[in-house]
Amino acid sequence: MDYIGFIAAFLTTISFAPQAIKTIRTKSTESLSLGMYLIFTIGVACWLAYGIHLGDAPIIFANSITLLLTGTILALKIKHG
Amino acid sequence: MDYIGFIAAFLTTISFAPQAIKTIRTKSTESLSLGMYLIFTIGVACWLAYGIHLGDAPIIFANSITLLLTGTILALKIKHG
Repeated sequence: MDYIGFIAAFLTTISFAPQAIKTIRTKSTESLSLGMYLIFTIGVACWLAYGIHLGDAPIIFANSITLLLTGTILALKIKHG
Repeated sequence: MDYIGFIAAFLTTISFAPQAIKTIRTKSTESLSLGMYLIFTIGVACWLAYGIHLGDAPIIFANSITLLLTGTILALKIKHG
């Protein structure tokens, strides 16, 4: 049952990859909420700062990947509107 | 510095609210990745199961809200394509 935590972390971390790929390919950003990506990206940056504060490698690793993916989506949303 | 963890959890939990509101209002789902919402929603369901397993109220509470929001977005994406 402890594995479910790892599965959860893995899934929520990689989930933004298909969105980032789709947005890079199609440049379609109309349906994306700017507010969501602003708030989420700031939140993930806070998770990363918290992980660095704790010295917790899994939190640092997972949130670095998520920050890269959602930061890319946010930048494309700002660029394409 | 410990507050940054609460701020992080708060931001990543509520971030899906503007996306859910936008998607309900506009019915625009074209730019949304089905893969992302499928994987993310399953991941959040796993976080919820993990929180119930641990008996951890903050994990249960935060992921219940997120599951409701991303489940709504996923349902609208499946409905409107």
